[in-house]
Amino acid sequence: MARIVMKFGGTSMAGIERIRSVAARVKREVEAGNEVAVVVSAMAGETDRLVGFCREASSLYDPKEYDVVVAAGEQITSGLLAIALQAAGVKARSWLGWQLPIHSDDAHAKARIGTIETDALLASMAAGEVAVIPGFQGVSDEGRVTTLGRGGSDTSAVAVAAAIKADRCDIYTDVDGVYTTDPRIVPRARKLAKVTYEEMLELASVGAKVLQTRSVGLAMKENVRVQVLSSFTGEDAPMADTLPGTMIVAEEEIDVERQLITGIAHDKNEAKITLTSVPDKPGAVAAIFEPLAAANINVDMIIQNIAHNHGSTDVTFTVPSADLARSLEALNQAREAIGFGELVHDTRVAKISVVGVGMRSHAGVASTMFTTLGARGINIQAISTSEIKVSVLIHEDETELAVRVLHTAYGLDAEAA
Amino acid sequence: MARIVMKFGGTSMAGIERIRSVAARVKREVEAGNEVAVVVSAMAGETDRLVGFCREASSLYDPKEYDVVVAAGEQITSGLLAIALQAAGVKARSWLGWQLPIHSDDAHAKARIGTIETDALLASMAAGEVAVIPGFQGVSDEGRVTTLGRGGSDTSAVAVAAAIKADRCDIYTDVDGVYTTDPRIVPRARKLAKVTYEEMLELASVGAKVLQTRSVGLAMKENVRVQVLSSFTGEDAPMADTLPGTMIVAEEEIDVERQLITGIAHDKNEAKITLTSVPDKPGAVAAIFEPLAAANINVDMIIQNIAHNHGSTDVTFTVPSADLARSLEALNQAREAIGFGELVHDTRVAKISVVGVGMRSHAGVASTMFTTLGARGINIQAISTSEIKVSVLIHEDETELAVRVLHTAYGLDAEAA
Repeated sequence: MARIVMKFGGTSMAGIERIRSVAARVKREVEAGNEVAVVVSAMAGETDRLVGFCREASSLYDPKEYDVVVAAGEQITSGLLAIALQAAGVKARSWLGWQLPIHSDDAHAKARIGTIETDALLASMAAGEVAVIPGFQGVSDEGRVTTLGRGGSDTSAVAVAAAIKADRCDIYTDVDGVYTTDPRIVPRARKLAKVTYEEMLELASVGAKVLQTRSVGLAMKENVRVQVLSSFTGEDAPMADTLPGTMIVAEEEIDVERQLITGIAHDKNEAKITLTSVPDKPGAVAAIFEPLAAANINVDMIIQNIAHNHGSTDVTFTVPSADLARSLEALNQAREAIGFGELVHDTRVAKISVVGVGMRSHAGVASTMFTTLGARGINIQAISTSEIKVSVLIHEDETELAVRVLHTAYGLDAEAA
Repeated sequence: MARIVMKFGGTSMAGIERIRSVAARVKREVEAGNEVAVVVSAMAGETDRLVGFCREASSLYDPKEYDVVVAAGEQITSGLLAIALQAAGVKARSWLGWQLPIHSDDAHAKARIGTIETDALLASMAAGEVAVIPGFQGVSDEGRVTTLGRGGSDTSAVAVAAAIKADRCDIYTDVDGVYTTDPRIVPRARKLAKVTYEEMLELASVGAKVLQTRSVGLAMKENVRVQVLSSFTGEDAPMADTLPGTMIVAEEEIDVERQLITGIAHDKNEAKITLTSVPDKPGAVAAIFEPLAAANINVDMIIQNIAHNHGSTDVTFTVPSADLARSLEALNQAREAIGFGELVHDTRVAKISVVGVGMRSHAGVASTMFTTLGARGINIQAISTSEIKVSVLIHEDETELAVRVLHTAYGLDAEAA
């Protein structure tokens, strides 16, 4: 017997027919003798509908009331799945965020889960009742409804799994696992059987958006074994404990002799900003990034070019495209303090990253990357590295070419069928 | 300054534009110096959508989970109205059923409100914050979401008004008040300025469905002054304390010299059942109504005809049309115990009622009714009376004629324009 958390996204909850197949899949886990908690998203499109209402009511809506409105989406699906499970002969009940409760801080619309009380939940599960828990929601100390921000249901699932010490947290998604790269770009991309939390964090944050980044971070912190599975596999598919999804685990569980590089990610949602003729003196760079930090804009890759002869330099960095306008505004307002010449930007860039825990103990990963791209005439505009990742910024038009040649260069291509 | 409860139905909450005009109307009451609590229904059509999901998930859905699903409709509108009020510059916050809390029994899907805790609510209102409360919902002692049954938002409004000792409970509806009869049948029907709780109960339960019956009973018990107003009057309409709606009040507030009869109601949703050749002996009638009571069917008008020569009698009564099939089944199953001859039924009947507290002290009301109908050749199939009501059962085709002639006979017609 295992204790498992199953999480289903909006596509799986879009309509009663699909909710019924979710119920059938949950039933199989129950009949296999498992204790099961299910975390559900709202029906596909429902959260957008509710957010739309709030925006229409006021562009400056109160996040406390926004949370009351949007939390209703998951409340609805949790009740419906409980009904569908009962109709399938499975004992089940819903537990809303305030009922468990799932305590969170009071950062409405982007709250963070604190503790989850589990006494009543575990007693109910031990009595053979499936717990159906709406994802995305919690309750503040003040007793107000909170939500975790978009995609928060993954985080709810991992948090519940950690709280009840689940053996496994199965995340059913639109994809059937994590691939070495985007299969739409590289048809010979391979599904990974296992990936470490750290790699998943790098892959997710640079574009392979299978799981919400926060949920992976939480899983790593709490050491929750997370499995990504396809929600579109038929009811006669093998059980989840044998399904060929991707397991996200600690590094210790990964074969040390595995490949150097786990995957290649790409991200076109970055914009490049360059400030020219910035004074080459102490404090100059701080003057640039302080106003951006104050505007809560995440700056990613940063390059300070070699100083010009006349004592000034160019500074280039990237920001999320969505924050470009606000970034330019903040920089222009700080123009005098920074003292730059020109402010130029380019949204036609892409960030390509090679990710793998294996590179920790191997030199030459970055060098392979630069050589491979150079051989195809792809110009590198910026570079950044972490312990398990090397990223480069290139022209957007060369994204697919870069991903393909790197996938081959690092030996990731699947055998030809 | 007054403390008032305002209640808005689903049509008033159907879309952000309408919610904004509700907010504008609430704002006027606040600016007039009133403390305001608003009770809201779900958006028109939303409860049907949610109930439809539950039914599709299982015809035998768990009412506990049904309540979780359908309560979401009012949760959504309460958050949206709070946002719209804030956007209009009015301090406001939502209070969900479990937050106040509104305690109810655990009769899920048809719960009854017990006590409502008001300390936090009154403190918030005293601080100038409009309280927005989702109607229709409560919380059981077990901490589960409950709902009050369809139309329950009226009851929520009255219960909140009683709990906070409101000076007035304004119910905004699709009609602009209570009329002497259905204006679609009698164009010269008059709007009543005041009506007693008792009269409203009789008028509502026999067809003038302006307010949910339970809410009127509760208002009577708690002595809440309820005002029925049109939600379609423009924002420049006079304030609610001078608006020409209908005030529902205790009998003491009604002019004793007022008219004998307050209104004429009709109801086509009854079916007549006759059992022939029932033994004319003690216990025979009990044998008929016991199985119906066991099936939870409300029997209304009952007539036991004169005994036949051979020691048997016919028994006629009415039941709601919706319960006819179940009634016939229950009676057929009890056929041996009752020992009737034939079981005949007729759905082509209508119940016409004249209602008025004035008839308590006046004889002749029933007699006027019978004479008036007889003069137009309308056959009376059954009669029932209460202290403030006389009802007759007639052929359905004669409904409009009967209502019109009675309206004139009791002097209810408005002056010709």
